[in-house]
Order: sequence, then structure tokens, then C-alpha cells
Amino acid sequence: MVKVGIVGGTGYTGVELLRLLAQHPLAEVAVITSRSENGLKVEDLYPNLRGHYGDLAFSVPDTALLGSCDVVFFATPHGVAHGLAGELLAAGTRVIDLSADFRLKDADEWARWYGQPHGAPQLLPEAVYGLPEVNREQIRAARLVAAPGCYPTATQLGFLPLLENGLVDDSRLIADCKSGVSGAGRSAKIGSLLTETSESMMAYSVKGHRHLPEIIQGLGYAAGHAVGLTFVPHLTPMIRGIHATLYATLLDASVDLQALYEARYASEPFVDVMPAGSHPQTRSVRGANVCRIAVHRPQGSDQVVVLSVIDNLVKGASGQALQSMNIMFGLDERTGLNNVALMP
Amino acid sequence: MVKVGIVGGTGYTGVELLRLLAQHPLAEVAVITSRSENGLKVEDLYPNLRGHYGDLAFSVPDTALLGSCDVVFFATPHGVAHGLAGELLAAGTRVIDLSADFRLKDADEWARWYGQPHGAPQLLPEAVYGLPEVNREQIRAARLVAAPGCYPTATQLGFLPLLENGLVDDSRLIADCKSGVSGAGRSAKIGSLLTETSESMMAYSVKGHRHLPEIIQGLGYAAGHAVGLTFVPHLTPMIRGIHATLYATLLDASVDLQALYEARYASEPFVDVMPAGSHPQTRSVRGANVCRIAVHRPQGSDQVVVLSVIDNLVKGASGQALQSMNIMFGLDERTGLNNVALMP
Amino acid sequence: MVKVGIVGGTGYTGVELLRLLAQHPLAEVAVITSRSENGLKVEDLYPNLRGHYGDLAFSVPDTALLGSCDVVFFATPHGVAHGLAGELLAAGTRVIDLSADFRLKDADEWARWYGQPHGAPQLLPEAVYGLPEVNREQIRAARLVAAPGCYPTATQLGFLPLLENGLVDDSRLIADCKSGVSGAGRSAKIGSLLTETSESMMAYSVKGHRHLPEIIQGLGYAAGHAVGLTFVPHLTPMIRGIHATLYATLLDASVDLQALYEARYASEPFVDVMPAGSHPQTRSVRGANVCRIAVHRPQGSDQVVVLSVIDNLVKGASGQALQSMNIMFGLDERTGLNNVALMP
Amino acid sequence: MVKVGIVGGTGYTGVELLRLLAQHPLAEVAVITSRSENGLKVEDLYPNLRGHYGDLAFSVPDTALLGSCDVVFFATPHGVAHGLAGELLAAGTRVIDLSADFRLKDADEWARWYGQPHGAPQLLPEAVYGLPEVNREQIRAARLVAAPGCYPTATQLGFLPLLENGLVDDSRLIADCKSGVSGAGRSAKIGSLLTETSESMMAYSVKGHRHLPEIIQGLGYAAGHAVGLTFVPHLTPMIRGIHATLYATLLDASVDLQALYEARYASEPFVDVMPAGSHPQTRSVRGANVCRIAVHRPQGSDQVVVLSVIDNLVKGASGQALQSMNIMFGLDERTGLNNVALMP
Repeated sequence: MVKVGIVGGTGYTGVELLRLLAQHPLAEVAVITSRSENGLKVEDLYPNLRGHYGDLAFSVPDTALLGSCDVVFFATPHGVAHGLAGELLAAGTRVIDLSADFRLKDADEWARWYGQPHGAPQLLPEAVYGLPEVNREQIRAARLVAAPGCYPTATQLGFLPLLENGLVDDSRLIADCKSGVSGAGRSAKIGSLLTETSESMMAYSVKGHRHLPEIIQGLGYAAGHAVGLTFVPHLTPMIRGIHATLYATLLDASVDLQALYEARYASEPFVDVMPAGSHPQTRSVRGANVCRIAVHRPQGSDQVVVLSVIDNLVKGASGQALQSMNIMFGLDERTGLNNVALMP
Repeated sequence: MVKVGIVGGTGYTGVELLRLLAQHPLAEVAVITSRSENGLKVEDLYPNLRGHYGDLAFSVPDTALLGSCDVVFFATPHGVAHGLAGELLAAGTRVIDLSADFRLKDADEWARWYGQPHGAPQLLPEAVYGLPEVNREQIRAARLVAAPGCYPTATQLGFLPLLENGLVDDSRLIADCKSGVSGAGRSAKIGSLLTETSESMMAYSVKGHRHLPEIIQGLGYAAGHAVGLTFVPHLTPMIRGIHATLYATLLDASVDLQALYEARYASEPFVDVMPAGSHPQTRSVRGANVCRIAVHRPQGSDQVVVLSVIDNLVKGASGQALQSMNIMFGLDERTGLNNVALMP
Repeated sequence: MVKVGIVGGTGYTGVELLRLLAQHPLAEVAVITSRSENGLKVEDLYPNLRGHYGDLAFSVPDTALLGSCDVVFFATPHGVAHGLAGELLAAGTRVIDLSADFRLKDADEWARWYGQPHGAPQLLPEAVYGLPEVNREQIRAARLVAAPGCYPTATQLGFLPLLENGLVDDSRLIADCKSGVSGAGRSAKIGSLLTETSESMMAYSVKGHRHLPEIIQGLGYAAGHAVGLTFVPHLTPMIRGIHATLYATLLDASVDLQALYEARYASEPFVDVMPAGSHPQTRSVRGANVCRIAVHRPQGSDQVVVLSVIDNLVKGASGQALQSMNIMFGLDERTGLNNVALMP
Repeated sequence: MVKVGIVGGTGYTGVELLRLLAQHPLAEVAVITSRSENGLKVEDLYPNLRGHYGDLAFSVPDTALLGSCDVVFFATPHGVAHGLAGELLAAGTRVIDLSADFRLKDADEWARWYGQPHGAPQLLPEAVYGLPEVNREQIRAARLVAAPGCYPTATQLGFLPLLENGLVDDSRLIADCKSGVSGAGRSAKIGSLLTETSESMMAYSVKGHRHLPEIIQGLGYAAGHAVGLTFVPHLTPMIRGIHATLYATLLDASVDLQALYEARYASEPFVDVMPAGSHPQTRSVRGANVCRIAVHRPQGSDQVVVLSVIDNLVKGASGQALQSMNIMFGLDERTGLNNVALMP
């Protein structure tokens, strides 16, 4: 059994880890921390967990206790993992960080986007970006994994086959992304009220969203050089789900895109290339650790349109983090992640 | 392995059976029928199933094929099971009917509410009402199980402890029930469009809903005599979930209701009596085979208010039907039904 | 032109006053206050107002400025109107309070429910409860009007014809009420996030909601004596709307309820008694100052079920307050309130 | 008073015409037709209209009766106006068609997209495309106006200032559009059920949507030559609203886009150019005849991103049609169209 610790378990990625781990046969949660909810049983905060976790309760972060775990997940705001990861690694505990702390390789870039100095630049060289479809082997050996953001997961998985093969003008990529409100987290903000977000659609952060440098970094690796990207996120009136609509101009219009995508992801357990002409719905992945992709060339032009959907809390966060855990501990990658999406 | 057939698999209770059975380690779907979708792969109708059912496709109902199954579920409109159940039973196949065909013990009453003669009155004596919390032993031996309706499940589980112990005036019970739109099924009706049901609340069928006689029958069994019930269903702007708010007048105000409910359901794996003062949310059971109940006496009066929530497609339909299957085939009742509700 | 001031205009009842007053031909907003948003143009907080209010901006409350208005609306949390109303009345300005400050006639009762002493008990004798269907003449002459709460409006209008005529057992009334999330106001609370409230239904405050004493007070006036009421509010996954489902036992089953209701409200411009057998939808009053009512006797029993729907922000708050203003200033009661509900 | 007829009044554009016309002081509905609902009072189909239309009922289309109107609106599926418009025009009645029948100038193009021959090509030369911001003077004199589609309205108003001034590479325009479900009309389709569309996001018709040729035609007029456009519509889980996110590459990065847009629409009553940096929400135009636009250049690149929102049933259909009517009959263009959007 993999002994699991979770730091910052009261947010949505925290409870989603608990939901998925409750069904994981080879891992168990030993400790879960929250300063604000210290002493509260997890099932009293999240009644969906009633009957699954007995008396497990939130506790204040205790490095010794966390250090006794095989792996610790950080489901925290940015900056927290910077402070604790080093000590845990020194104790021999592996770390999977769901926050943005170790996603960007450039500490200065991180500081620019997050408005504070990077707190653990010395750990960046060994941090592995936890996108198994790109870095599976590095994840296997990693001590420190940076789980990708939700928009970056949907966008990279959608663009990868094109960029890895140099098939498009990668100086003018466009990612028009739509996210459910859970992407804004479980925090008391007027802008996330049902009364403010339901029955409405809006773009936000057009000027620059923190996921932009992460996406550009990942696409740049795939392309082998820097790429140009316009990224516009939208707040969509639903709880879960990301729909990335990706646009690029083909350099060679003769390529068989459907075959390309199917080949690229043929052996990936959690990327589903749908039949030609499909329009994936975000609900088809609700609660499941899957990215479904469809690739189009409208009117046979040289414009490619890729549709890529995930559940932002699963393949875009907690599920993908568990996928990395499975890889790190030599388990079947699919363990505990094979549930069917909830539809309707 | 229990070999399963499903008749009428294109509706929401059908796809929900498929979702749950995909995760059931001791059952497998051998055949699924649909006249309208004959030949279509199930994953082409329900993309959430992609990767879970291979080439399983809908076929036209074939009695020989269905008769080779250990059990056949009917996820059909009323009237269909009447026509086929007898032949399957004769072939040694057990039947679990999710429709209303065998729920009412009185064939004439059935005919009045459904506007057509009962098609198989000779099977009524052996049909077992599939509410495990009441009829577990009869279900174990049953050949033919009538899975309860969604409103009846939430309402009966909420009222049972009061009625079984003669604690309330059962001539004036009130059940104010709120259901998500999936209760109306997957059929093309203007009244179920998002544009007609979202952002609105309405009562319906106040004059008389078909679940009324089923509830009255079940409550009458519990009370040992006929009861009086006012039942008002409401259409609620959400996909899944039933919230039953139940009202009754206590005959003896000294009873400890919390203790009563906890004792009644202490050994029930799928009924969760919440702590005193709780307000269960339907989302706390979304996708899970659980009924959560809280019992209140506002301002210490002699009025008892019971809050009872289920997912209408799980504990209110397909999950409860699988629970019966587990019981019928000697499996652990919880097999395949232990997933955690999706929250948020 | 009626010169209008609004105290506390950033909340939902505030913006709703602005929306309705923008279309009122005989009133104009002279001043609107907010300490937190001092200096902000109203259209910058609420872009739906762009083009309707020019440079009107929030200012800090200034008694002299407010006192120069003909009427001041309080769209504030409880307690604020207590402190300011007296001074404004002394200046000759009439006051319409949308908060709870002057709804209860008993200052001690108010103190019990709101957990603080009543701040202006000396004003209670002259405060008029602003339900025009009951107190139209008193409103006409009033200097201080307490606009009713949302639940109390829907519940009282639904029960009044029964209680005024002594037709039901008024010791055991039940009001099962469902409200949209806007009833919780525009404040940053986790419990009001879309992620927490969408796709779910729950009861709340079953132990005792602050609207309970207000409803009991109003129903008691109608009955001529104290009544007994069980009131269970529910949070419904929609923005606007209240659906009150009311239950009572008839003392005389021979009464023609449809005729009774139609006669009671025949001359009321904003109460619509729907045809027998109707099921009003909350969306049929979305944005409109209307209460639609249908009255039922299921299965011809002695149980009466009344369905009463309003938009909680219009007939349940700002619209009704404007209706009182029209009456107080001798205008046609319908002025500015005749817009059609938004459907779909 | 303008005497109005409506053909096909049972759909959402029909009821929306009725909602808006109820508040129009200078027009009255004389006749409204529906074959399926012949004899039904409009308020019995749409209870939001109760009290506003007396005994007005649907009738079967009668050319004489319609021909006695000053103007007839077609709120019908495509093909219907082809058959009736000519006769009405001959009778001296002006026609405003909300369907697609007269939007495309090329009858063959129309036939290709709609799969049937154009039924009235002889009327195309005089048909005026009813986008007042482009064709105000032609509308004034028109006998036959083709009201624009919803996507085309949001997209054209967003792109016009760029194309009219030749500022972007118009061979590679992208319109990523998100629509509420009311765009699919009031028809019984499984794909429009709340259970199928709520809590999910999907693209559709990526291969080619019928609004594509209409948009290309309009953009081509603005540019003075044929343009290239990739148009991807998305079904969004809300009732009303279109959010168009438009992408183009600037040819000259020195242009002041904010000033350009403000100047272009300075005298337009129903186009609102928001302050620089804004993110318009669709709810800010819910129920109102307004298009709100914001223009961005993310990271100061040469990519322009335009955000354009409308209510698809108002500025995208019935409101814009009434705007044309006001122009045609010499009324103030804003008459009856000045209501404030419903927010929240």
C-alpha cells in the first residue's frame, strides 16, 4: 500500500483526491492537513465521503508526520509547496505538487507571473512536469512531480501531435478555452457565486493568464523551439469541465490528421481520439481521468481545429496526479482511475 | 460471473446500468437491446462508455438470447416487461424490472393509473418489491423483482421508521418532493428542454402522479393499515437528484427521533442517517447508491420534518436494481456500488 | 418626478431598484450610497445599467443629501435602517426599508431572531408592513414602509384567502418553500458559489429561519389569531424565483377554492390567480412584479395545496417596494412595473 | 399605431416579439398565426404574457388578414417566408423575416446550405439585410427586410471596424462562438434536453454551420472583397446569450483599436463599446437589445481579440427585427427597446 499524505485538503483538488483514493485499492490516505479546518473530520466537510474515511480528520501540517508518508500531494495555493517540498524530499518522501510551484522551469518567469520570488529554485532542476503522455519515463524516477494545470493539459494534449511533427505554423497558435467554475477553486469570491456565473458566459484574463507561460513552455518543448500562442480562457456556467478549441494553420495540407492523432495516442490509456467528425462533450469525461480529442479541417481548408475536453478536477488535476503516483510507484497506471464518466 | 441482459438500454436507467456494471467485478453485460438503435455500438450513443464495452452493440430483443442470461433488467417504458417477463422466467432467467409493471400488487389499480389493462397479472403474486431495506430476504429468493420508483424510494426510506413504529398521524402525511429533470427520461419533449426547465421551479401532477399509489402501498405495508398521503412532485432545474421533504404530526412528542432512525438503519449499507441538525444536499449522493436522511422537529413542535435525498438514477433506479441483483445472486450487496458521490 | 435615494445600492435589491427605476417615467434616482464602492459609477459595477444612468456614482451616506429626497430606499443588511430612518423621517423624507428592520411589530421578537437589540423601537408603531394586497390604504399615508421579505410575500399571498375566511385548520399550516440563490444576496460566501449550489437541492434553516416570525405575524393578522406554521426553506439551483408550496387541511370541504381566490384578487394588479389545474413556473414571473397562484385539492381530499410563485427580487423585494412608492406618491400603482417576464 | 402580424408565433423568437411588443407604445399585434396551436390564447402557451394580450389567440395563416397589417414578421422555419412574402408585399404589407430565407443574396448558395431550391429568388434583389449598423438607410425604405442571424450579428458587429478599415489579414479570420441553448429553438429534440446540455460544453457543426455563408457575405461586403473565416459554434449550458470571441492578425500594429471601435459605434444606440480591458458577460445583455464589445491585444502582440456579446433572442433576433420596424416606420429607433438587461 502506498501511504499518502495530502497538504491542503479542503479545496476541490483535495476532495477530488479523496474521492479517487477511496476507490484506489493500493493506496491509503494516512494524513490530510488543513490549518483552517484542524480537527474536522473530512466527511463533515464533504458529506459525499461519509462511510469511506472513518475518523480521518484534518490536522495541522506536521513535517514529521508527512515525512512518514511514501508520497505527499500538495493541493495548496501557490507558494506553499515551495516551503515544504525540500524537507519532505530530504526525508525520502516523494512529492506531487498540484499547484503551480514547480511547473515553470524558469524561476524568474515564475516570479513575474506570480508576483513573488520563487521559493525553491534549487529544486527546479529535478522537478518533472507530470504529463505522462510526454514525460512518462521521467515521472517513473521522479522524486518531485509538478502536476500540470487544467488548461495546459487540455491544450498540450490537443496540440502535441501537430507540434511534434512540425505540421503547423506554430508562431500563431490560438487556444480558445472554456472552463467550468470549479477552476476558480473553493474560495469565497463574489465572482464565483452562482448568481454571478450561472446563465452567463465571459472571457477573462485576456491580457494574460498564469497558465499561458506553462502552455508556451510545454508547446515549445514539443516543437523544439519557441512558439507563439494567443490564449483566451472563458468562464462557463457549469461546475466541471474544460473545452479547449485549438486553431492552427497547416503547413502541409496533405497530412492525414486523424491517422496522426490515433497513432500518437494509440497506447495512451487516458487519451481518447474520437472518430473523425466528432464533437466531444465535456460531460463525457465528467469525473473520469480522460482527455477526449477530435480533430477537424472545416471545409477542407488549411485550418486545423482541435477539440480537446477534460474534467479539470480529474485529468486536469487530481486524477492526473494519481496517474503520476501510479507510475512513480510501479503500479498499473490505470489503478483506481477506471471509473466511467457520469452521463447524464 | 453473472451474465446480464438489458432490455431497452438507450434510456438513462439503461446507460446508468452500463456505467455501474462497467465497474462491477462479478457481472458482465452479454446483451443489450434497443429496437430503435439496433446495430449501434453502446459507446457511440454514450461516449462516456468509450473504452469500457468494446464492440457491445444494441440488438433487437431476442428471447432466446435474453433467456441465456442469468438475469435480465428491463429499463423500458411501462408495459414492455409485462410482455416478456413470463417467457424469460420460464427459461430460468431472473428478471429485475425497473419500470412500473410489477410494483403495484393490485392489477386493477395499475390499470387505472396507467390507462391500459395489466398485461401479466398472473406474475404479480411472485413479484417482489425490490426495496432491500424492507424486503431483503424475499429479494434473495425472488425470480422477479420490481425495482421501486425514484420518488417512492426516497419517500418510503424517509417515512419507514415513523410508520413501522406507529409514531405519527398517518392519515395526513405530506411528501413534498423535488426531482431533477432526468426523472423525465431521455425522450424528446418540449417540457424537458433546458430552455424550458432551467432557471425555473414548478410543481406538476398535483392532481395525481403515478408514483402515488406505489408510495401509499409501501407506506401502508409499513404502517399495517391504509395511510393518507398528499404527494406533490416538483421539477427542479438540475440533472440528477431527488430531495424529499416529508411532514407528519407526532402522536408522542417524547420519542428520540435521531436514535430511532439511527437504529432502524444501523446495518443498512446504503442508508445514511446524518447527524442531528443536518441538511443533506442531493449532490452528496450524485452518482452514488446512497440515501441520506436527516430528521428534524422545528422549534421542538410535534411536527416532524424528514429530509431524504437520493440520486434518482442510482438508489432511485439502476443502483438499487443492482443492489437487488447482488442479493439475488449471493454476492456482497455492496459489490460494484461503492463509488463516492461526485462533489463538487 | 419623485426624487429617490437608495442606501446600500451594491446588493441585488439595490441593482434591481436601479433596473426598475430606469424604466419608471415618474421617478429619478438622485443619490445612491455605498461605503465600500464610494466613487464608483453604478454602470461600472453593473454593466447592464450602461447607458441608463450616465455618471451616477455611489457616494458615502450623507444624511443631508438623502434628506433632500422625496423617498429613500434602504437596500441594506438589517440594523442599518434602524440608525438612519428616524433622521430622514424628521427631515420629511419618506422611507421604504427593504431590510427586516421594521417588519416585526414586536421589538423583543426582533431582537431574539436577529441577535441584537432593536435599534429604533420608537418607530415601530408607525411602520406600515408594505404588502399592498393587505395594507394598501395604510401604505398610502405611510411615512415609513417595511417592505416584506420574499418568502413572506409568496407565503402570505398564497394563504390569505384561506385564513381570512377561516377555512382551514390554521394550527398546522405547512409552507415548503424553494428559493433561488439570489435570496442569499451578493456576498462572498462559499455556500453560495456555483460549485456548491448548482446541480443540487437542499433544505436549510429547518430549525428556524428569520422569515418565520414575519410570516406567522402576517398570517396571524389574516386569521385574527395566532397560527401554527411549519416553514422549510430550500436552496434551489437557479438565480431568481421563489416557489411556495403550501399545505393546509380544509375545515369545510364544500368551498369553491378557485372562486374564492379569484374573487379575493380580482382587483389586484399584481396577483394572478391561474386557471384551475395550473402549475405556475417561477420563470413565468422572472423579472416581473407578479405573484402567480394556483390552488389544488389533490384527489378531491380535504387537503388544499396552494402553489405561489414570485421573483424574489421583484415582487419579493424591489418591485414590491416600488409598488409601495407608487401608492405613497399617488401614482398609478403599476407605473414602471408593467414589464413582461423573461421567458425563456 | 403600427399594426403588426406575426407568422409562426409559438417559437422563441415569436414569444420574444410578443414580450417586446407588449411594451412598445406605438405598435400593436393584430394577428398571430400557428397551424399547430390554432385557437389557443397566447397567454395559455406563454404564461409570462398573462394580462398583456387579453384574448389574442393563434390563428391559421390567412393572407387577407395578414395583408391588412402594416408589417408582418416571420418567426418561422426556413422556407415558409419564401411562400408568403410575395403575396403580402403585393398587398402593400411590409415584411420582416426572422428566418434565413432572404439573408443570402445568392439563391444557389442558399439552396446548397438549406438543401432545397430557393423559393422566391425574384424577391432577393429588393431584400435588405436588416443590420441597422450597416444598412440603416436601406432599411428605412425597405419593403422586405431579412433580419440577421444571431451568430452573424455578434460576429459582424465585432469584426466590422477592422474590416471596413482594412486593418487585419482577412484571409484568416477566426470566430469562436458560444451560444445558449435557445438558439436551437423550441422544438422537441433530445439534443436540447436539460439532461443533455446542462453541465456540459461542446462544439458543433465544425464542418459547416448554416450561418457561415451569411457571416462571410457580410464580412465580405465590409472588406470590399471575399474573406476567409473559420467559424466554430459551441453549445453552452445556458438559456440565452451569444459570446463571440474573434481573432485576427493586425496588418499595422500601431492602430488605436479602442478609439477605432468607439468612433465606429459612437452614434449607434445599441452597440456599446466597453472600456479598454473589459470582459463583457452575456448576462449584461440578457433581455436587452444591445451588443457589448471589448477589444484586446493580448501581450501587445499583433493578434487582436474582440469579445462581442448579445442576447441571441433580442439583438440576435426579435429585438433587432423591431429595431428595423422602428426604422421602417419612421419611429425613434429605440422605441420599446430601452429595457435594462436582467442582472443577476
